[in-house]
Amino acid sequence: MFPSIIAVHCGAGVHCSDYRSEYNKLCKQACLRGLESLKNGGSALEAVRDSIITLENHPRTNCGYGSNLTIDGEVENDASIMNGETLLYGGCGAVKRLKNPIQLAYDLCTKQTQENVLGLIPPSLLVGSGALNYAKSIGLKTVSNKTMISVSSAKRHKKYLEVYQEATRDKEQNLLLDTVGAVCMDANGNFAAASSSGGILLKKSGRVGQGALYASGTWADSSCKDNEPSIAVCTSGCGEHLVRTQLAKEIANDLTEVECPTTGLYKCLTDKFINSKFLKNVDNKLCGVLVLSKKNDEVSFMWGHSTETMSVGYMRSDDKRPSAFISELPVRSKVGQIVNIGGYHYSV
Amino acid sequence: MFPSIIAVHCGAGVHCSDYRSEYNKLCKQACLRGLESLKNGGSALEAVRDSIITLENHPRTNCGYGSNLTIDGEVENDASIMNGETLLYGGCGAVKRLKNPIQLAYDLCTKQTQENVLGLIPPSLLVGSGALNYAKSIGLKTVSNKTMISVSSAKRHKKYLEVYQEATRDKEQNLLLDTVGAVCMDANGNFAAASSSGGILLKKSGRVGQGALYASGTWADSSCKDNEPSIAVCTSGCGEHLVRTQLAKEIANDLTEVECPTTGLYKCLTDKFINSKFLKNVDNKLCGVLVLSKKNDEVSFMWGHSTETMSVGYMRSDDKRPSAFISELPVRSKVGQIVNIGGYHYSV
Repeated sequence: MFPSIIAVHCGAGVHCSDYRSEYNKLCKQACLRGLESLKNGGSALEAVRDSIITLENHPRTNCGYGSNLTIDGEVENDASIMNGETLLYGGCGAVKRLKNPIQLAYDLCTKQTQENVLGLIPPSLLVGSGALNYAKSIGLKTVSNKTMISVSSAKRHKKYLEVYQEATRDKEQNLLLDTVGAVCMDANGNFAAASSSGGILLKKSGRVGQGALYASGTWADSSCKDNEPSIAVCTSGCGEHLVRTQLAKEIANDLTEVECPTTGLYKCLTDKFINSKFLKNVDNKLCGVLVLSKKNDEVSFMWGHSTETMSVGYMRSDDKRPSAFISELPVRSKVGQIVNIGGYHYSV
Repeated sequence: MFPSIIAVHCGAGVHCSDYRSEYNKLCKQACLRGLESLKNGGSALEAVRDSIITLENHPRTNCGYGSNLTIDGEVENDASIMNGETLLYGGCGAVKRLKNPIQLAYDLCTKQTQENVLGLIPPSLLVGSGALNYAKSIGLKTVSNKTMISVSSAKRHKKYLEVYQEATRDKEQNLLLDTVGAVCMDANGNFAAASSSGGILLKKSGRVGQGALYASGTWADSSCKDNEPSIAVCTSGCGEHLVRTQLAKEIANDLTEVECPTTGLYKCLTDKFINSKFLKNVDNKLCGVLVLSKKNDEVSFMWGHSTETMSVGYMRSDDKRPSAFISELPVRSKVGQIVNIGGYHYSV
């Protein structure tokens, strides 16, 4: 038994100064919610789910209520969760009208091992109307399309739809403020990670991004206890590029093999994302990641991003209060070309 | 310029003797169709697409027309394709009423690099009704739900729905006969892979399996020409297990590092699937794979499966006619516990 830790992020993108205190406050709330789950006997998996629910319910995040709207003017959400203890994953993609998509991902993750008649394997990824109907059948809260739309998401949609329809080229960074996520290690040393996303503004209906997808949006592995390394990762940024590079899993693979987690993360993000052969002709490589790793008795909580900013919060179970901040790329660093890494390390 | 080669499979599962000649004939037709594309100047990517179209149009395969029905009695298809030259992928999941799902995957794959207003990234994975609407908008052929259902798929659904509703436990192997696939190397040394699947019979609506998903259903990498190894892989079997193990990409990673492709594939399927930590509590580990690799001047075409049988066909551009066969697990080998590998190697 050692101090548990939870960390969350509200997306990697551009957090303009007007809203920074609001994001920090929200990150803290989400950390408190996750730690409360742990205190009540919840696992790392339940903690990240509950932190994400807090983020999904807030209108300022691009997940759940208030998400970016599709080109057709609706909210379609992606979410995924992975249990490091069992290595099982659940995800949902392009699902409408579901108040908390992470709950559906959680349900699918925890039911992966259930036996079924005819040897049928429970699904790990459900999408679209099938996902919504299944969510209803297990009693998750569904609402109208309209109820998912916040005043500001409707405004943003109206504004950029006009820009889009006029076919103006304008690499507006706010469009990319994306997926939120959480990583957690509980007192038993189990790790979990979760992501939730509304996807990019004006995305095509039916588009599924890394937020829903195994290996791309989330990764967690604490299946080998004792002295084997454990890790949890969640990613944010440009969904298609995070899928192509499978960034969450790549980070996990690389970090289990290095001596220094910070330089390991820097090298991984540089080699496997910024200079990835899978992103050869991409100019602007936008990512943000949260990483929690444990090797022997050393715990590292790290963040990294190639976006202008990333909104991060964390809290240990023996902390009096949560911490939150907006991490910024160093001045004169070129967005999408270089990564900024930060970290916090301690022994247990 | 060297002889091109295309290989296809009609699924890994149980091919009962009544239909074996029909599967062999179909595999040959699909190979001929792919080679015809190449002869007409098509790339490896177009060749695998066209081979898959032949398989999707046949009622006996579990893809496109005649696919297994969902628990709700409809056809919902997954498909994906990857271009080894560009390392780009396109996929569609849980899409209804689309005559040839592989055409949608192909469209998404080839449009990945298109620039867009507002810096919007084209989607790589579209699902559900959004995928259908997009397919319509680009002129792909859509049909009614009913038109996708064959006499035998309707019969199968009726039979197993009754079994399911009576909650009888019966590990019926026919349910698992799954995803078809194709791999190709064209005369320029470009590799491509494609998969198409109706998913497991009685699957939940909205379920997306490996057939749609990057790294799990297909992989192709011929981006480093010259003496670097090139590879194309497609997988079949239990979708959720192929997703968890990301079998297509793992095979590609492992085979680029070994001396002997056959023992490399055997070891990879054994270590990364049969004995995978991601399938710890799974009794029956069902997979089938097609692999095409080139290292220096040595080309290897291989198949491997842990299912009772796998239906395979292949043809080189300098062959007079295609070959097809049903590969069988050796007598007394336990299905889902051991892999059977076959291969065909030549120099160019």
